[in-house]
Amino acid sequence: MRVVALAGGVGGAKLAHGLQAEAGADLTVIVNTGDDLERHGLLVCPDHDTVMYTLAGIANREWGWGIAGETWNAAEQLAVYGEDSWFRLGDRDLAAHIVRTDRLRRGERLTAVCRHLQRSLGVAAAILPMADEPVRTRVRADDGWLEFQDYFVRRHQEPTVHEIRFDGMESASITPEARDALAGADAIVICPSNPLVSIGPILAVPGMQAAIARARARGARVVGVSPIIGGHALKGPADRMLVSMGHESSALGVARLYAGLVDALVIDAVDAALAPAIAALGMSAPVTETIMTDDESRRRLAAETLAVAAR
Amino acid sequence: MRVVALAGGVGGAKLAHGLQAEAGADLTVIVNTGDDLERHGLLVCPDHDTVMYTLAGIANREWGWGIAGETWNAAEQLAVYGEDSWFRLGDRDLAAHIVRTDRLRRGERLTAVCRHLQRSLGVAAAILPMADEPVRTRVRADDGWLEFQDYFVRRHQEPTVHEIRFDGMESASITPEARDALAGADAIVICPSNPLVSIGPILAVPGMQAAIARARARGARVVGVSPIIGGHALKGPADRMLVSMGHESSALGVARLYAGLVDALVIDAVDAALAPAIAALGMSAPVTETIMTDDESRRRLAAETLAVAAR
Repeated sequence: MRVVALAGGVGGAKLAHGLQAEAGADLTVIVNTGDDLERHGLLVCPDHDTVMYTLAGIANREWGWGIAGETWNAAEQLAVYGEDSWFRLGDRDLAAHIVRTDRLRRGERLTAVCRHLQRSLGVAAAILPMADEPVRTRVRADDGWLEFQDYFVRRHQEPTVHEIRFDGMESASITPEARDALAGADAIVICPSNPLVSIGPILAVPGMQAAIARARARGARVVGVSPIIGGHALKGPADRMLVSMGHESSALGVARLYAGLVDALVIDAVDAALAPAIAALGMSAPVTETIMTDDESRRRLAAETLAVAAR
Repeated sequence: MRVVALAGGVGGAKLAHGLQAEAGADLTVIVNTGDDLERHGLLVCPDHDTVMYTLAGIANREWGWGIAGETWNAAEQLAVYGEDSWFRLGDRDLAAHIVRTDRLRRGERLTAVCRHLQRSLGVAAAILPMADEPVRTRVRADDGWLEFQDYFVRRHQEPTVHEIRFDGMESASITPEARDALAGADAIVICPSNPLVSIGPILAVPGMQAAIARARARGARVVGVSPIIGGHALKGPADRMLVSMGHESSALGVARLYAGLVDALVIDAVDAALAPAIAALGMSAPVTETIMTDDESRRRLAAETLAVAAR
């Protein structure tokens, strides 16, 4: 079964890890690059790298991001030189940003650079940036537009988000690799990532929704997994952001956002009562335990999600 | 007493450290940049950084280069990504190369970037790159021209050097900061660095020798310290290189290279017998212990060198 997953960072990486355990090299993950940023002149791709380290089995499981056993000596020294330290880069993590920046400057596409890094780490799946062109998510808070990581990391997601935009999106396009993966997919999984700032940018890439629609037209099934459980996000600001952006912070609110796009939305057992309302939107709403606490629960949720797609 | 020192890496750094203990902020060190190189897209300035770390008191004294207590996690990870590992960069050291590369890309001059790094580390002296423009030393070995660090680090200085050239020198020029320092100098010290590939590039920078000549014309004295002791270099390939380039590997051979440029060449006690021959070249040849094993011997040699200049 050939699987394409759309994913943001931590939550998406967990399900992608389970999907890789099920599908191995038949898994392609298309990751959000809207929260990429430049630090100290180096290009950092937080969502890509979180998924890469998770699928390589070297992620720090406690944090959900970064590399297990990481050290911070370069970051400490960068602070000595007066560099901003609100977005700290670990010593091992730095290597990816250094290699990526160097290869991009030499003319390689972001997709090619990321594939090189993944293969070096022995990742079985393919992890594709949603676009090779730079796209930068901005959010409008009470006091104006913020760069995404300024909002997310520096301001701890505290500002209320009133508006979201994806700078550069008009110049971006789906990559040949992502188009090919979707053209061959039997199942397309929308991971439990923030619908507005993780999945939203991926779906906004010119050519992406058309490629998904073509896949569905030839029989591929699209299954989402709700990132909202009992009205709350497990991690991150998705719940507050849904509300401040005029949506409902619930699995039903997520279903409304994905209506017309997905054939099913997997929801948590605590949200079983929402299933009829979700079904009324034209998708099935299979119910299961969706909290992933270890490798086994990642794999189980992945297997159940793929089983929904196979029905 | 305002002092300008010309220096390469390890040996030059030691005397510069002693000179800083004597002259403090009245010391300016002009360093060789001919052995700079790009690694992983980052500009590395080995001689500048060796002098900077030494004058900041954070150098690894056992190696003579790098930072004490350095770690190598980024370098290990870079190797995982297939990057060449013959020139390894430590985690703390990386910070300097990252900041330097970023600031240069934003349009700062190399001199300004280096001064920023030095001030951040609390270095009392000013350490000036010999030029802001890139100059790259190449050496011709039996099988052709080699980049300097390819010869020096990767091939462990084993190839025989038949010819030396400084690529980019025709487009380089003395910096305003170096010209000002020489214009105000009471003493100019040529550190015990390799005359051909450390001091040689500095003296070859367009405008450098003229600035030194102007300083001498108004009374500044130029004093060298021989890097060759008893016919041998303490570290590095200077002795073999002098011979393969047609010179003599001795304090007298060094004196011949500096004839007309220096007023005195400080030589080691083991070379006392060479003093008359050196004096015949038109310079004095004060004799002392020139091996610097600790802070005290660095300071003593610096003080004696400055005393020669003050005579």
